[in-house]
Amino acid sequence: MRRINIGLIGWGTVGTGVIKILRSNAAHISRRTGVSLRIRRVADLDLKRVRGIKIPPSILTRKASQIIEDPEIQVVVELTGGLESAQELIIESLRKGKQVVTANKALLARKGKILFREARKNNRRIFFEASVGGGIPIIKILQEGLAANKISSVLGIINGTTNYILSRMTEDRISLEMALQEAQINGYAEKDPTLDLSGVDSAHKLVLLASLAFGGWIDLKKVYVEGINEITDEDIEYTGGLGYTIKLLAIAKQTASGVDARVHPTLVNRHHLLASVDGVFNAIYLEGDYSDRQIFQGKGAGEGPTASAIVADLIEAGKEILTGNLNGPGSLLIDDDLKMASMGEVECRHYIRIPAVDRPGVLAQIASILGSFNISIASVIQRGQRRRGVVPIILMTHLAKEKALKKAVARISRLPMVKGRPLRLRVED
Amino acid sequence: MRRINIGLIGWGTVGTGVIKILRSNAAHISRRTGVSLRIRRVADLDLKRVRGIKIPPSILTRKASQIIEDPEIQVVVELTGGLESAQELIIESLRKGKQVVTANKALLARKGKILFREARKNNRRIFFEASVGGGIPIIKILQEGLAANKISSVLGIINGTTNYILSRMTEDRISLEMALQEAQINGYAEKDPTLDLSGVDSAHKLVLLASLAFGGWIDLKKVYVEGINEITDEDIEYTGGLGYTIKLLAIAKQTASGVDARVHPTLVNRHHLLASVDGVFNAIYLEGDYSDRQIFQGKGAGEGPTASAIVADLIEAGKEILTGNLNGPGSLLIDDDLKMASMGEVECRHYIRIPAVDRPGVLAQIASILGSFNISIASVIQRGQRRRGVVPIILMTHLAKEKALKKAVARISRLPMVKGRPLRLRVED
Repeated sequence: MRRINIGLIGWGTVGTGVIKILRSNAAHISRRTGVSLRIRRVADLDLKRVRGIKIPPSILTRKASQIIEDPEIQVVVELTGGLESAQELIIESLRKGKQVVTANKALLARKGKILFREARKNNRRIFFEASVGGGIPIIKILQEGLAANKISSVLGIINGTTNYILSRMTEDRISLEMALQEAQINGYAEKDPTLDLSGVDSAHKLVLLASLAFGGWIDLKKVYVEGINEITDEDIEYTGGLGYTIKLLAIAKQTASGVDARVHPTLVNRHHLLASVDGVFNAIYLEGDYSDRQIFQGKGAGEGPTASAIVADLIEAGKEILTGNLNGPGSLLIDDDLKMASMGEVECRHYIRIPAVDRPGVLAQIASILGSFNISIASVIQRGQRRRGVVPIILMTHLAKEKALKKAVARISRLPMVKGRPLRLRVED
Repeated sequence: MRRINIGLIGWGTVGTGVIKILRSNAAHISRRTGVSLRIRRVADLDLKRVRGIKIPPSILTRKASQIIEDPEIQVVVELTGGLESAQELIIESLRKGKQVVTANKALLARKGKILFREARKNNRRIFFEASVGGGIPIIKILQEGLAANKISSVLGIINGTTNYILSRMTEDRISLEMALQEAQINGYAEKDPTLDLSGVDSAHKLVLLASLAFGGWIDLKKVYVEGINEITDEDIEYTGGLGYTIKLLAIAKQTASGVDARVHPTLVNRHHLLASVDGVFNAIYLEGDYSDRQIFQGKGAGEGPTASAIVADLIEAGKEILTGNLNGPGSLLIDDDLKMASMGEVECRHYIRIPAVDRPGVLAQIASILGSFNISIASVIQRGQRRRGVVPIILMTHLAKEKALKKAVARISRLPMVKGRPLRLRVED
């Protein structure tokens, strides 16, 4: 058994978790895996903040270069959360011959091609289990566990903040604002929750999952992204009555015309495996040609789960170092850009909520517009408290193409009797 | 890229699935993993049976020795399902320097110590992903994905036949006999379903899961096993009314006094993640000290899912052969016998159904016996159609030790007014 020396750059919540695991479980890990992990140095700009654990001042530094330049350090864990600076740290580490472990999904989704190429050029690997799904070993499952399969679809609830908010809105019929405040108080949402609420964090993670699943690279810019901001408690109520739960889903499907990849709030049938994934839990649903439907569920964030994934990567990196196999074949094929399906061609059933003046003839006008785009209506609900004479009209459509829906809803929103923007949500069947 | 030559011993459903995957997905697999898998020979005693696929007669043989003696074959897949004969095939293969892939849980659970020792002696590995949970990569998850964690409990629905039967009984309130017949017609149950219904198949799988989870070896004989045979549609109804679903659970928990490992029908709270795992799906719930609660769900049997796991093992074995690392560290520590907790000390809440003559004073007698063993009653239901004056008395107890319950129920069953054996089911909270 040989010792693996680790340098940790960025000492926040996850870094603290990693240090805790290596303190409490080091013997356990080396007995099980033959790898002895030791943190040789920790770098952070702020060494004074209280983190609940103490580490010897001798291994602390403000300078990341003290880790990158240290020839004894074999694995660098990048946990700074930055973009340009983190990119530089990772590239420098690879060039110095170090294996890299990171949880930085934003960086990988944006600059993955550059980074993974740099790793290959240096005959090294970037491990990123912690970047998606917290403690769920979903990267390993896709790269190895299901490697025999062609994956046809990936559906994920991969943002704990929005799932917590939607769950609380569903359970107690509170508003999005209240649920967000509650999430912030409980530490489930950042002070600035934009990245989560907007769906962008989910899109980052989807880029990694779908690129792995479909064997190529997905351009983040080509992922359709829509957040949960416009969901109201009314929508939760109406869709609940129709037998659906609203979830922020990250969806990627292999279709005849390319990969259909998108993030948006989605009506999920109450009986679907994903409908009951509540609170801060994450879940990833995969369909493979032989493995069939599977779902993997666990805590998607937080000190313990994320650190569990980081340390799994450290063990993996350690094993490879000990066997002299530093660039084990990964299934992320960055050289092949995946062909993307056009969002306009995506077919879904839709839920549409239209705030309209409560007067005869409104529904006829709306139905006529939908009809002119060949969109047929499955059901209509017209009820609710009147607010200054405005009532929501709720429609469920049959299968229709995105581009038709988009145009039809734009035209509906211009009707004089429609007061405010209609909300359109897609259904995942 | 180098080719890995495979010999398949036992050409049944799973073997057919493996051949199909390597036909349809070989290019996909080698592009993703760098491993090119080729079946060099298939051995089976019966070469005439119709299997829905054709393979060139030149690679078919009746003699397993033609695989084991072939120096070109690097990996042997044992799919005969036998015990003594399979053990011999595996040992011979290891001695000839071959890596072994098997789905034979019965053999591994019984003779794992001998087999894994033989592998180590020969500097080879036995891969067994397909032995538990069908296509769910649960062995990899335990060995690698969650390697940073000390696992505290494993709960599994790991027998599709019994889960199908219990699901059907719950959905449509049919009898166990009818549900079993239906399962047999649909190919979800064997002609002789004893191994499944008795819980023994689940116990085999639990030995493997728990040995991996807790880092030692569990003696199959020390696993408490109880099947589903005595569950009636009445029990489904009563427990459903109390908010529970009956599942055949395989349970292993690390306790202060050792590993508590058992298989029995269990009342699972309707809100538990495992309660909604229906039909032929399997699911494994794990709790780790950092990863927290996770659940992995998928099809637990069948040609496709099981073959998906076999081929994942073949890819893994192939990678190790290509990197010259033939005995990668596994986390199955066969030399350490795990200390087992005594079943008598296990504490559960219990459901007890007692068939008793409908006469005043019965309940008082029963309550008095329970009281004398310090078992307190949480609730009582006394209803149901009278059958020749016999009504079931349904009791839910508070937490009580197994040994007390066992003695109390034995004494209750000897009461003159009790007509028939009481049924006792444990609750998992």
